[in-house]
This record gives sequence, structure tokens and C-alpha cells, in this order.
Amino acid sequence: MKILIKNGLVVTINKNDEIKKMDILIEDDEIKFLGDNYNGNVDKVIDATNKVILPGLINTHTHLGMSIFRGTSDGLSLMNWLNNKIWPLEDKLTPKDVYYNNLLSCIEMIKTGTTTCCDMYFGVTEGINAIINSKIRCVYTRCLMDNDGLGDEKIKEFLDLYNNYKDKNPLLTFSASVHSMYTCSYEYLKKVKKLADENNLLLNIHCAENIEEINTIKEKYNKTPIQLLDELGYLQSKLLLAHGTYITDEDIKLLKNKNVSIAHNPISNLNLGCGIAPISKFVKNNINVSIGTDGQGSGNNLNLFNHIGYVDLLQKGFNKDAQIIESYDVLKMATINGAKALGLDNLVGSIEVGKKADIIILDMNNIEIFPTNNLIFDIVHNISINNIETTIINGNILMENHKLLLDVNIDDLKENINNILKKIGEI
Amino acid sequence: MKILIKNGLVVTINKNDEIKKMDILIEDDEIKFLGDNYNGNVDKVIDATNKVILPGLINTHTHLGMSIFRGTSDGLSLMNWLNNKIWPLEDKLTPKDVYYNNLLSCIEMIKTGTTTCCDMYFGVTEGINAIINSKIRCVYTRCLMDNDGLGDEKIKEFLDLYNNYKDKNPLLTFSASVHSMYTCSYEYLKKVKKLADENNLLLNIHCAENIEEINTIKEKYNKTPIQLLDELGYLQSKLLLAHGTYITDEDIKLLKNKNVSIAHNPISNLNLGCGIAPISKFVKNNINVSIGTDGQGSGNNLNLFNHIGYVDLLQKGFNKDAQIIESYDVLKMATINGAKALGLDNLVGSIEVGKKADIIILDMNNIEIFPTNNLIFDIVHNISINNIETTIINGNILMENHKLLLDVNIDDLKENINNILKKIGEI
Repeated sequence: MKILIKNGLVVTINKNDEIKKMDILIEDDEIKFLGDNYNGNVDKVIDATNKVILPGLINTHTHLGMSIFRGTSDGLSLMNWLNNKIWPLEDKLTPKDVYYNNLLSCIEMIKTGTTTCCDMYFGVTEGINAIINSKIRCVYTRCLMDNDGLGDEKIKEFLDLYNNYKDKNPLLTFSASVHSMYTCSYEYLKKVKKLADENNLLLNIHCAENIEEINTIKEKYNKTPIQLLDELGYLQSKLLLAHGTYITDEDIKLLKNKNVSIAHNPISNLNLGCGIAPISKFVKNNINVSIGTDGQGSGNNLNLFNHIGYVDLLQKGFNKDAQIIESYDVLKMATINGAKALGLDNLVGSIEVGKKADIIILDMNNIEIFPTNNLIFDIVHNISINNIETTIINGNILMENHKLLLDVNIDDLKENINNILKKIGEI
Repeated sequence: MKILIKNGLVVTINKNDEIKKMDILIEDDEIKFLGDNYNGNVDKVIDATNKVILPGLINTHTHLGMSIFRGTSDGLSLMNWLNNKIWPLEDKLTPKDVYYNNLLSCIEMIKTGTTTCCDMYFGVTEGINAIINSKIRCVYTRCLMDNDGLGDEKIKEFLDLYNNYKDKNPLLTFSASVHSMYTCSYEYLKKVKKLADENNLLLNIHCAENIEEINTIKEKYNKTPIQLLDELGYLQSKLLLAHGTYITDEDIKLLKNKNVSIAHNPISNLNLGCGIAPISKFVKNNINVSIGTDGQGSGNNLNLFNHIGYVDLLQKGFNKDAQIIESYDVLKMATINGAKALGLDNLVGSIEVGKKADIIILDMNNIEIFPTNNLIFDIVHNISINNIETTIINGNILMENHKLLLDVNIDDLKENINNILKKIGEI
């Protein structure tokens, strides 16, 4: 299958930061040509005249199964929300429920231009099947913890899934994730690290999210979370830290020049009263920063375009320095930096020949965002869902001209979700 | 003309915080009936089954003429942006340019559910004519300052406009505004206060926006801006302060129990590196807080739904307290508090019998924001332009089912805006 996207303004996010009107030829799953006036035979042409083309956005921290918990965090701090709201509700979810919840999240991502996500949730085949059926690119990870005494069962469950699925779908890769240092024993944290090293997997953990976590780790280990990770050897592995709200200047020295990325989740961190991560300092120290939405329960939505505006504005406002960050830096965080964080930068994160065809097309001609004086600034701050026209993942057109092309009956999905909500009771 | 809006879920924002499925009868400009099953004869029925109905949003601080300056603040602090970018560009604008710029802003507001704004810009009849032609409700104010030696000319211009237009259009009222204390002499500030008192007009001023302003006023007067306003008698008038980012606890004591409102502009304040206004403290001290977008140059867009999410999340994140503010408080700031700030709360800001028919209809059934567990939270955080279906101002339907009903040729408007941009050169 050859698809030609003609005449769009391509924001490549390549090494030269090229932004240029070009044709893009997709052959099967790959970008094969990028340049002026492609004239070969193709199966389908998408006219992108006056449109803007971006690499699909990459969401490096989410919990797809939480789509039904949107709006539940209002007025709750992190631990209150988890202990008294979310965890009791999640106990009532069946694997089939997770299928529908994941499907709903995947549709939200496709409609809002995200083509890759890192999902951390229960380890159930139904969850993975929803992701596979959605044809989205995903780094999948079962959220491991042993504070309920069931740590080994969770590891077994994860390894079973990993071994079953690792070669089944080119869009699906795996990461080993521990929920956090406050929900895992020291020995368990070491065990998961070993598992990750043995299987050459990305390690993934919620880290330094709020002040209670810092205090808990300090009390138990007399260390900061980052110092503890260092002792555990995590900083020697390929590691993705979610949040990093409370990372200190001393911690940053430990993180520098390591294979560590930080998934910044601005909306979730604000919503739960956690604070604002010092990502400008991370950037200054060459620590890779990517962006996550977190689940809808705390992040409100999976529309990454909503979240990137916060990334930019929070740094400017919180540091009282309008020059501390640029829109283009933020757009890189949501694309190529995300790919790096997930170990997928050889495949996605930019529009380049040889990369996989994960591409979105924006129509920015609507009168309400006219005129565009500063393209990248407008992409970061002024894109609504009605500007996101077409989403292509691995060469599959999953949305075209705002029409979802996935084989899902939306009314049935809504009914299934409503039934789950009825079953689990008041949320 | 009688319009019946049938069967919608009405978020009234009345004194009882009522949210109820009701019919709304509009007769000419007014809400005449609110309740179950209206059965009288009407000229038009809008079926709002499964839709949500809100009072139109109220934007208490903007500069409509700045629609063409979107994206110009990237990486610039307030004074740098004003002195080196905006003011030189504005010098090149003709009155006719302001007409088109205003028209573009008004269309953006209608499309995004704002029905009332407070506009502070040049005093030109063309600017007012664009507002009148847009059929939007507006408190109009010429931005007065005398640092260019032309203070009296500006006052004359404002008074001419005021006297010409004050009885011409029921949607148009006036406020007397000084740009700021750092662009006006002490005597000029007194003069405008007198003018406001003589004409019983709301006073309006940019105040305590950034640290440079605080330092300038401190140096010149050895006072905070609020202390200076107190000395000038401003706090004895009906007063609207835009920004208030740097208002101290001592200032708050002066502001309490006065007829003073603060227009909070979260996006603009972040964008220009000004900081985050302590609005939770204002609320705690019963100071009326409303919301503004500022102009697009610093506020990015006039879609107030984008801005209200920031209001909520900034307070939670900056104060590290998820309970410090509730979504409903924020929605009130964008509706009834805005009406109070502008002295229009007898007319608009809530859906009640006897008030003017400024009403918007939201369709929240889109799959990407499904399910709605917490209606008010979703209104504050998850509304995109594609959820805003219908906008009614003073009984006029200006947008219905996303279709703009204003008699404006959008292609011509875009061409006119492009010509202005060509003329003023690189921005």
C-alpha cells in the first residue's frame, strides 16, 4: 500500500529542525520519500495543501484503563485520591472492563493526534487486546508492586504477557514497571530491576511525585527517591521516571549523563496539588524530558495538545522568566524526546525517510485561530480537537478528515462503559 | 420573537446553584420562563435534549484589537513585549484596521461561548462599530494614558465616543480606564477618577501585573500599587483591577469590603513570565474574582474555556493544595462574578427569569470526553470548541449548531487581516 501525502507543510522534528512544504510517500508502514513533487504511482493521495503535518505525538505516561475515572480527582490530594477513591474502584474492574476502558482511551488518543503511548496498568490480556485492536503504538507495562503481598504473582503475570505477546505485534513493546518506591519493598525493587536487565527492558516508575512520597522515603531510607534509585542500581539501567516533581539540585547531579528520562505530567501534578516539576533545570542539565498525560482520573484527558500548553506556560510563569523555554522545545518533548524516553527514537518521533509512518495532519485554517504568526507557538498553544484532521499510525490511516476509521461501534462502546459505571457504583 | 430551548440540562448559576433539566423561554432579549414543559406558542424551538446549557461566559479583560498579534509574546517579558513589539506595531494600525481586528476577536468569542467582554483598546468609532455589528455584549473602554503627552486628547476622544454611543445600543456600556500607574502621571490618574465619578462609570486599570511595575511604583511613590490607588481614592469607586499578580496580604486588607473586583488573567500572566495571582486569598477575603483572557498577543486566544482550566489547576498546583478551589467556584468566576465585576449582574451572568438571554448550549456527548462523571469539572477542564454548539446573546442566535449566523464573509475578513499584516510588516 502506497499513500502519498501531497503538499503539506511538514514540521519534521529532524536534527536540522526542518519545516518545509514537502510530499511524503508512505509505503506500508514506512516513510519512503520526503521531498518535492513525488510523481510515482500510489494507491491513495491525501491532499494536504494548506495543512500542517507533524509526527504523531507521544504520551510517555498514562493509565489507559482509567478513562472512566475522569473528573474523580476534584478536590483530592494524590494519596487521598488513590487510597479512598481509585484503588477501591479498580478492585471492582474485570479484565473485560479494562478492555472497554482501554478502547475508549485509544479512541481519544487517535482523535487527538497521539500515535504512541506508554501504558502502565493491570496486566490482563484483554487490556493488551484493546490496544492491539486500536492499532495504536504502545509500550505496555504491568504496574508491579508488592505492598498487598502479591508481588510475585504480578511479576509472573507480567512475564506471561511479555512472553506471549513480545513477538506478536510490531506496534507493541514492553517495559518493566514498578508502581513506586512507597508501594514496593526494597527487595522487590531489586527483583524488578533484575528482571528488566535480564530481558533488556526499559524500567519505569512513578517517582518524586509529591511531598508525602519524599517524606516516606526519607523516613524509611534516609534518602531522596533519586538517591535510593541510585543505590538500587536503577540509574545504571534505561529508566523512565514519571513526574519528578520534587527532584532536587543534588538529585540532578546523579541523573546527569545517565540513560534516564523524565515524563513530565503537568496537569496531573497541578490537579492533585503535587506542584510543578523543575523541568527547565532538567533540560539545562541535558536530562531528556518527555510528556505524559497520566490517566484521565488526574490528567483530565489524553489530548496531549491540551497538556503541552501547560508545559510551556508553567515554566515561564513559575520561574518568572518568559525566556526560559521555547515552544519548539516543548514540541520536541511531545515527539522526539518521547520516542527517546521509550527507546523508540529509531522508529518514530520525527518525520524522516526510514522511520515508521506515525503522522498527523492539522488543519489550522479555522477562523478562530487565524492568523498564524508563529506556527510552532500556535501548535503548542492553540490546537483544539477540531484542528486535528487525520491520524496515521504505522502506515494505517486511523482517522481521516475527522472520521474515525477504526472498526468500533461507538454507541455499543458507550453502553458498555455505562454498564461498567453502573456496576462499580458511585464514583 | 419567542424562542424555546427545550429539555436541556440548565446550569443556572443562580443563588441556589441549581442544575436542572428545564425548558427556557426567550422573548425578544429576555428570559421569560424557566421550568418544566413550556407549552405556549413560540416562533422557534431549539431541541437541547442531552445538551448542557450555561449562561454565556464573561471575559472581563481583553484587547479586541490585538487579534492579529497572536503568538508574538513567545520568549518576551511584559515590558520587552510592549515596548519593542506591540506598541510600535500598534502605531501602524488605522481605525479601519481596528475594525477588522475587533471583528475577528468577536467571531472568536461567539464561536467559543463568550457573550460579554470588557474591551480596553484605542478609542475609535470603527472599533465600536465592529463590536456593535458583532452583536456581542461589551463594556467598552478607551485605554487612557498620558506618558506620550497626549493624555487630554485621549480623554476627549473617550468622552466623545461615550456621549455619542452611550444611548445607542443596549449591548454597549462604558468604563473609564487608565492603562496603568506606570504610564500615567499622578494628576492624570486623579483626572480620570474624577471623570469616572462624574459619569458614574466603572474604573478599570492594569494593576500589579509584574515585579517591574511594583518596583517602579515603589521607587516613585514609596507605595504598593494598591496603596497608591487607595491614596488616589480609586478604592472608593467601583473598580476593576486587571491582573493583581503581585497583590500582598497588606494590600488585601485595603481591598476587602470595597467595590473592587480583580480580573485574573492566568495564561497571559504565565506567558509573559509575570507569575501567578494569589486568587485563593482574594476569594477567602470576599474580593470578587472574575476572569480575563487578555488580548491574544499574550493570552493566546479568547476561548475562555481554555483559560478557566488554568484558573483551577494553578491554584491547586501552586498552593500544593488540591482542595483550595473547586470547579464550580471557577465557573462562577467566568459567569456571575464577571457580571458583578462589570456592573452587569442585574442583566447577565446567570440563567434566571428576567435576565437577558445570554445563553450557550454545549454538546458534551462526544466520545473523547465520555463519560461525564462530574459535569462542572468537565465544563471547566474538558470543553473544546467542538462542544460549543450554540451561542445566544440578548436573544439573538449568533451561532447555531456550530454555524456562525453573523453576516460576515469570512474569506473577505481573512483577506483584510492579511492585508493589515502585510502593511505593518514583520511581527
